Amino acid sequence: MISKIDHIGIAVKSLEDSIKYYENALGFKCEGVEEVAEQKVKTAFFNVGGVHIELLEPTSEDSPIAKYLEKNPHGGVHHVAFNSGDIMADLAHAKEAGVALINETPKIGAHAKKIAFLHPKSTYGVLTEICQDGECACH
Amino acid sequence: MISKIDHIGIAVKSLEDSIKYYENALGFKCEGVEEVAEQKVKTAFFNVGGVHIELLEPTSEDSPIAKYLEKNPHGGVHHVAFNSGDIMADLAHAKEAGVALINETPKIGAHAKKIAFLHPKSTYGVLTEICQDGECACH
Repeated sequence: MISKIDHIGIAVKSLEDSIKYYENALGFKCEGVEEVAEQKVKTAFFNVGGVHIELLEPTSEDSPIAKYLEKNPHGGVHHVAFNSGDIMADLAHAKEAGVALINETPKIGAHAKKIAFLHPKSTYGVLTEICQDGECACH
Repeated sequence: MISKIDHIGIAVKSLEDSIKYYENALGFKCEGVEEVAEQKVKTAFFNVGGVHIELLEPTSEDSPIAKYLEKNPHGGVHHVAFNSGDIMADLAHAKEAGVALINETPKIGAHAKKIAFLHPKSTYGVLTEICQDGECACH
């Protein structure tokens, strides 16, 4: 079951510049920067009342974020992620309701979370991620 | 000070269709539908762990949401709203940091909240709302 919004994924050209904006203009504190090689991005996280803002800078021209920035050169919201206690059950539930899944089985994302995306053609234009916290003892 | 994400505003062509998706595929429950005449939208709210998903359907061709849907016909994330305990102070702080304000003074939005928007040219492409809960005793 989905209990909360996990994070909002925001595509940016430059982590450095956009981190300054979120820190200086909105008063948030960057929790850290992490590279997710599989997704070809560097990410920065801000905890805003328990929901994260995740900034995503592409590390390669064929990164999905690079493709998003070609269409939206100023950046913008790339995806919305919902936290699930049972990602397999929630993916099955969405599929039964007619949603096209980009990932039938979860992949491993930042912070060792299990993640899977629903196709925006089924979700009224919003690229939607379902994620489940990893079981590694370090988090 | 901004303490939490208040809501994610999502532009949709049809509230009816998209409410069904959020209810049937993701398991959320629509809290209600409200028309905000000044913004020329009908809105539907879902409470997801204390943060709201706000669906926005235009009620007029010159609604800002209608213009968004011209560019993004499938819909998508229109804005991200942060909840402030002191909207005037947070707007002043953002302005001092160099952010262009769409609204120098707050307007009244859905649920009688004070709302003001920051210009996406200053916020790395994300139309950003700051809002403060209304003082009316009914909410």
